Amino acid sequence: MSSPHTVRSLAAHVGGTLLGDGVDAAITGVNDLRSAGPGQVSFFHNTKYEADARASKASAILVGPKDAERFTFTRIVVDSPSNAFAKISELFAPPPIRDEPGVHPTAVVAPDAILGEGISVGPHAVISAGVRLGARVVIGANCFVGEQAVIGEGTRLYPLVTVRERCILGARVILHSGAVIGADGFGYDFDRATGRHVKIVHTGHVQIDDDAEIGANTTIDRGRFGRTHIGEGVKIDNLVMIAHNVSVGAHSIIVSQTGISGSTTLGRYVTLAGQVGLAGHLKLGDRSTITAQSGINKDVPAGAVLAGRHAIPIRESLKLEALVHRLPELVERLKALEEKVLTDGSNASPKS
Amino acid sequence: MSSPHTVRSLAAHVGGTLLGDGVDAAITGVNDLRSAGPGQVSFFHNTKYEADARASKASAILVGPKDAERFTFTRIVVDSPSNAFAKISELFAPPPIRDEPGVHPTAVVAPDAILGEGISVGPHAVISAGVRLGARVVIGANCFVGEQAVIGEGTRLYPLVTVRERCILGARVILHSGAVIGADGFGYDFDRATGRHVKIVHTGHVQIDDDAEIGANTTIDRGRFGRTHIGEGVKIDNLVMIAHNVSVGAHSIIVSQTGISGSTTLGRYVTLAGQVGLAGHLKLGDRSTITAQSGINKDVPAGAVLAGRHAIPIRESLKLEALVHRLPELVERLKALEEKVLTDGSNASPKS
Amino acid sequence: MSSPHTVRSLAAHVGGTLLGDGVDAAITGVNDLRSAGPGQVSFFHNTKYEADARASKASAILVGPKDAERFTFTRIVVDSPSNAFAKISELFAPPPIRDEPGVHPTAVVAPDAILGEGISVGPHAVISAGVRLGARVVIGANCFVGEQAVIGEGTRLYPLVTVRERCILGARVILHSGAVIGADGFGYDFDRATGRHVKIVHTGHVQIDDDAEIGANTTIDRGRFGRTHIGEGVKIDNLVMIAHNVSVGAHSIIVSQTGISGSTTLGRYVTLAGQVGLAGHLKLGDRSTITAQSGINKDVPAGAVLAGRHAIPIRESLKLEALVHRLPELVERLKALEEKVLTDGSNASPKS
Repeated sequence: MSSPHTVRSLAAHVGGTLLGDGVDAAITGVNDLRSAGPGQVSFFHNTKYEADARASKASAILVGPKDAERFTFTRIVVDSPSNAFAKISELFAPPPIRDEPGVHPTAVVAPDAILGEGISVGPHAVISAGVRLGARVVIGANCFVGEQAVIGEGTRLYPLVTVRERCILGARVILHSGAVIGADGFGYDFDRATGRHVKIVHTGHVQIDDDAEIGANTTIDRGRFGRTHIGEGVKIDNLVMIAHNVSVGAHSIIVSQTGISGSTTLGRYVTLAGQVGLAGHLKLGDRSTITAQSGINKDVPAGAVLAGRHAIPIRESLKLEALVHRLPELVERLKALEEKVLTDGSNASPKS
Repeated sequence: MSSPHTVRSLAAHVGGTLLGDGVDAAITGVNDLRSAGPGQVSFFHNTKYEADARASKASAILVGPKDAERFTFTRIVVDSPSNAFAKISELFAPPPIRDEPGVHPTAVVAPDAILGEGISVGPHAVISAGVRLGARVVIGANCFVGEQAVIGEGTRLYPLVTVRERCILGARVILHSGAVIGADGFGYDFDRATGRHVKIVHTGHVQIDDDAEIGANTTIDRGRFGRTHIGEGVKIDNLVMIAHNVSVGAHSIIVSQTGISGSTTLGRYVTLAGQVGLAGHLKLGDRSTITAQSGINKDVPAGAVLAGRHAIPIRESLKLEALVHRLPELVERLKALEEKVLTDGSNASPKS
Repeated sequence: MSSPHTVRSLAAHVGGTLLGDGVDAAITGVNDLRSAGPGQVSFFHNTKYEADARASKASAILVGPKDAERFTFTRIVVDSPSNAFAKISELFAPPPIRDEPGVHPTAVVAPDAILGEGISVGPHAVISAGVRLGARVVIGANCFVGEQAVIGEGTRLYPLVTVRERCILGARVILHSGAVIGADGFGYDFDRATGRHVKIVHTGHVQIDDDAEIGANTTIDRGRFGRTHIGEGVKIDNLVMIAHNVSVGAHSIIVSQTGISGSTTLGRYVTLAGQVGLAGHLKLGDRSTITAQSGINKDVPAGAVLAGRHAIPIRESLKLEALVHRLPELVERLKALEEKVLTDGSNASPKS
């Protein structure tokens, strides 16, 4: 199958300028610098990858204006190599998976469920009593949607997603496989008389607003009462834990394996990097950022960038780390002083 | 739909005393302080939320005796606002989901499986050969129960739970969606001759005792031989990892995203906070507590409260942290001393 | 049911030497030292368990030559107690689960899927259009295999595994329950004009090579373009997160709850212990090792053993920790010096 694309035609497609030879080579795909071979286009946007760019076997590489003259390989100069690459990638992308229209004959759909226009319900999916699915909702194979759940227009559940009873999803939400929405919160009262933990019934639900995306195997527990709330446009990665009655403000980003304890509230545009842990009942201000693997146990002001185990500003955290790394030197200096002072001034023998 | 409840009737229901105006307002639900609106009751039990209480739009708020006179909003004074709130919440709780009795026609049940009275097996569930389900067991949609597994009376598997072959669950156990019970342990022998990891067959099983609860997407691996054991009344949160041959003593609590390595043994009433990691082959004594994000690599005495990366008592851990935070000051003091001593006593120039 | 095995016959089976009494006792199973009872064999290989060995109720215990004379219980002396135990365990192992041959009538298999000889497709599994399954592939109950995925000979998906479209699995791969292969990578462009995160389409796939094993509820995201790659013989534990475009070299080991950020490349025979976090775009050299709960944010040389939050050699890391634990003493020494120097040499009062 001959490709209709050449380096030249792709440069024209993204409004780029050609530099170097071989601009009429046929192009059949895209790839990263290291993986790309002849017939593929790649892109360079980070000096960290300069060696990879020089060694790349790609037929052409997209570069920014400032890098135009540093290289000799065939290059397409554009303002944003990343954006141009995305545009070119679309030309070679495999066709998206076509969702089978309608309800697969093996799906189990309650008679009173309300199904919008243009929905797709996959094999072995289960839609319980009282569920409402908006127009163009896609429910993947083997998903479970519990009683009276409401799912907005254009929302997509990939295969094997669980949405428990009475949860509410907005429009264009994406839930990746293995996500569990609305499991019971983790709450018990301890009964001293019997020495047993007594389960607290969680009668609340989870509400996920428009355009949010929830990663694979992430869990979002239902509220004890009221709701656990994921705001509009929030993006949550895989294997994240969101406890009962948490509220995540609009457009926040939560990276993989982070955990948020019960009733903590995040403002808008908060960023939690990977493997962060937040204690319960905290408030994180708008646009605050917590760096990877940090542990936060007090409120965070708007705009703060905190790091480490104790919610201190990243600058201070880096300084303390540097000092910890200098401890061997500091101990030597202390010892030298002791020898000097104690030898000079007394008969006490210095400690080592 | 008019509610039969008023602030006054609810106060009577929980044996509380009314203070403030508006005690005849109709009440239609409950909510937390910040989310509550007119027509809803909330509760105040933590001074951290005093501002929320004052700003709350709830029609009435449950407060304890010591807070009775601090506020002016409509309040119901009770000994335990939390307990009273739970009691009132029940009046407004949605009816619990009714489990469909019997075996759904799409479920696949092995002919020799033994099914107790009053069971409910959901759509597309799979019950393998030799399985025994006790009375009133509930198996959710799309669950898998492997060969010869035994599930005790009243135990509930929410949708999309996996229980592998020969695992044994007691009575009234709850498994949340996505939990995987009895996957192979992570064990290999390294074959130097071929440079390959050779899988160790895990022929054991998992045993979960009465009244335990296992969170969403938590994994509990089967024993290499013998069992991985979860004791009576143990409560495990979401996304927890329990490795092969671990034993968790009765009534222990394990919070989200914690991991326990192979063959470690926990006593009774142990508490592991979130994101804790335990090395393998350890023993944790009864009623020991490990704080969030700690890493433990040696045995823990009964009753100990340990923190941080190296299993030290919480008090010592907090002291060390405080000292690390004082490092900048300590370095300044060291430098001042050096200047003094070395300038006074010699010609050596002080380091900076 | 009387057992055909005795302590004596088992000793002969593993070529061991008998010491102690009771060598004609019937043996009906194996177990660990603490759980074993009469009629069972156990093994001792770690001095940590000496007390357990002495207290064990096992009818016989396998021990190494150097431990032969330390104990008085019935023992079978062998070069490798662990290997001998594995050999004896096989005699008592339950028969492996027999995979039902063919396609279960409730499975949904696309008409154009290509099914190799001797496959087993379980109840309610879904095999999408264009899928190719090699000979003897086993697809468990309620699994989903997306369009055009390719699964090599002898590969096994335990129940409730998700493999998204176009992913490629080699031969003899094992995927445990709840694993999600090929969910979209976590990537967004931020649109300043609208203040929204715009999803980056991930058109790549995941490739898992021969003999790899992937744990329960682990997630491996598809590449943005090109592939996320798991090399031959790689073993990944439960609840691990592998982000888009990561490459894991052959025979690497990744322990539970570890996370690897996008585009990071691991060499061959790398070991990541539990709860490790790796930043994105890193290179880890062959045979490097990262200890549990470490955070790595720069490249790692081949063969390095790094620990802690900042990728420092384990030896240095342990030294720094020891110094942090000595901080109280160091502060006392500093204070003593200050008192001495400042009292002797000036009128300034020492800080406390």
